[in-house]
Amino acid sequence: MTGRINRQWRLAARPKGLIRESDFEWVEEPIGGLEEGQVLVRNIYLSLDPANRGWVRKGPSYVEPVEIGKVMRGLAVGVVEASRDDRFADGDIVSGSIGWQDYGILDGSDLRLIPPGPLPLTAHLGLFGMVGLTAYFGLLDVGRPAAGETLVVSGAAGAVGSIVGQIGKIVGCRVVGISGSDAKCAWLTDELGFDAAVNYKTESVARRLHKLCPDGIDVIFENVGGEILDAELMWINNHARVVICGLISGYNATEPVPGPYSFPMVLIRRARVEGFIVIDYYDRAAEAIQQMSGWYEEGRLKYRVDVYDGLETAPRNINRLFDGSHNGKLIIKVGEEP
Amino acid sequence: MTGRINRQWRLAARPKGLIRESDFEWVEEPIGGLEEGQVLVRNIYLSLDPANRGWVRKGPSYVEPVEIGKVMRGLAVGVVEASRDDRFADGDIVSGSIGWQDYGILDGSDLRLIPPGPLPLTAHLGLFGMVGLTAYFGLLDVGRPAAGETLVVSGAAGAVGSIVGQIGKIVGCRVVGISGSDAKCAWLTDELGFDAAVNYKTESVARRLHKLCPDGIDVIFENVGGEILDAELMWINNHARVVICGLISGYNATEPVPGPYSFPMVLIRRARVEGFIVIDYYDRAAEAIQQMSGWYEEGRLKYRVDVYDGLETAPRNINRLFDGSHNGKLIIKVGEEP
Repeated sequence: MTGRINRQWRLAARPKGLIRESDFEWVEEPIGGLEEGQVLVRNIYLSLDPANRGWVRKGPSYVEPVEIGKVMRGLAVGVVEASRDDRFADGDIVSGSIGWQDYGILDGSDLRLIPPGPLPLTAHLGLFGMVGLTAYFGLLDVGRPAAGETLVVSGAAGAVGSIVGQIGKIVGCRVVGISGSDAKCAWLTDELGFDAAVNYKTESVARRLHKLCPDGIDVIFENVGGEILDAELMWINNHARVVICGLISGYNATEPVPGPYSFPMVLIRRARVEGFIVIDYYDRAAEAIQQMSGWYEEGRLKYRVDVYDGLETAPRNINRLFDGSHNGKLIIKVGEEP
Repeated sequence: MTGRINRQWRLAARPKGLIRESDFEWVEEPIGGLEEGQVLVRNIYLSLDPANRGWVRKGPSYVEPVEIGKVMRGLAVGVVEASRDDRFADGDIVSGSIGWQDYGILDGSDLRLIPPGPLPLTAHLGLFGMVGLTAYFGLLDVGRPAAGETLVVSGAAGAVGSIVGQIGKIVGCRVVGISGSDAKCAWLTDELGFDAAVNYKTESVARRLHKLCPDGIDVIFENVGGEILDAELMWINNHARVVICGLISGYNATEPVPGPYSFPMVLIRRARVEGFIVIDYYDRAAEAIQQMSGWYEEGRLKYRVDVYDGLETAPRNINRLFDGSHNGKLIIKVGEEP
């Protein structure tokens, strides 16, 4: 094992605006040896997520930023090729923060075993991974929607948003999604069962929401922020809940971004606006996965993945999250499935 | 009674920016007769509150705006001079929305009887009125501070803020107030027991809060918004609570006001930002008044009132709320106590 070459993307500079390939350095070096408790994992599927943009920024965050010169952080699914942790054996499929590289050496305690099963491996980065947990706990635990209420989801065709909307339908909400193309809007309403969808690139979000939410908005699941959040807040009902899961519209900003101009609606409507990060819910993952597995088997939850080939494409493809040129959970295929 | 002259301030125009006397019309007309269930109240003390500015604005609000041509709305304490409601008799002291006029005719169901007691009448517009309820429920029910936590209060020398900070001390918080003069800051720390105070007119709020809150901020009680809220959010801890009670910095704005630039901190810190309006808590008023009466008798709650003479001064004096040239609960003395 040792001696094999590990290809890596290391952070070379803090990106300004959109990530550029020149913000990373491509390095090839031999794999090191394992210490007691460590596991060597070969990367198969690398998850690209909006949160990645925050991880390379200096300034306050919920995790330490990736240091310059270090391998870029990234969740992934891989296969164990060597283990000095009794809980893992060669050939086991695992998920964890393998990073933007072919091989990761991780502490066993930072890995999650994925038992053999019928699901495609990519599902463990989507519906049954961090994305699914984010949708499940963010909506149900923080948003607390009730049957008959109106739920608005921004970034609705994204990995998290598409699951949020479907769970919203399962619990009996009227669900309106906001997305960036007619094709995505059609997918939301025709395939996923959303009641309506708004194309923010061609329509006035504020005007359309006013029309599509005649009883006002009770729950907002926010992935975008900026002008989208501003438009949504205009129509909230008393005691609305606003789950702040992401603010992707500002992630590549190079100047300070104002908060929502309609912020006073939070006061007028006595709304609860609550930030949410899934890491606070990892200890309840089993609960969510069990519930969502049931819904999935009943055909009530659909998802799609958008897989691009080759570790070398990661710095280019990550911007699909920000320009919307992807369809579903964005994944890089780094290596072959065993 | 009928035939006596009632002096009134009627809304003549929707103010642009600060309220001007020309936004109101001074009218003198005879008092009308009472219908069954109505009560004639002579105004004694008129409460001027930041919320009044919202009541004369068109656009979304938690109450209908005052119509052009109608008497300006305003909470007050007065004395019953005639009653066709069995629950009230001549000479009773009551509080309710008497408005900017010498005499109000109100439905008995819109009045609250103030039983005889040792308190000055103005206390029923301050500590034991809407202001006290706002501080009590906003801090305890929405902010939920725990002993040992750090509470930051903006508008801290104001009617609500000064009570909030004192309740914060009673429940064991470190309390830092933000106010607009050295004299007010000294009052907060020397008289009311705040741990520290920041003069936002002479100091960098962000820098001072960082220094004065070495363990971060757990609860914000927000009366001001704008740049003050922006600075506070920079230093919040995980799972901080932000009570949005007022956003006075924007009440006279003539252009759209951006939300807080540091809004992403809500996400990063998983904060709960919650709007609060005291009308949702009126049915629990007795609980708050009983608790605060106890604290007041023990000498643990102090308050001050700033009383200006004459109904005719109301449109001028209300701007003291916005330029800070008042000290404590702002009240207009409209008539003599019986």
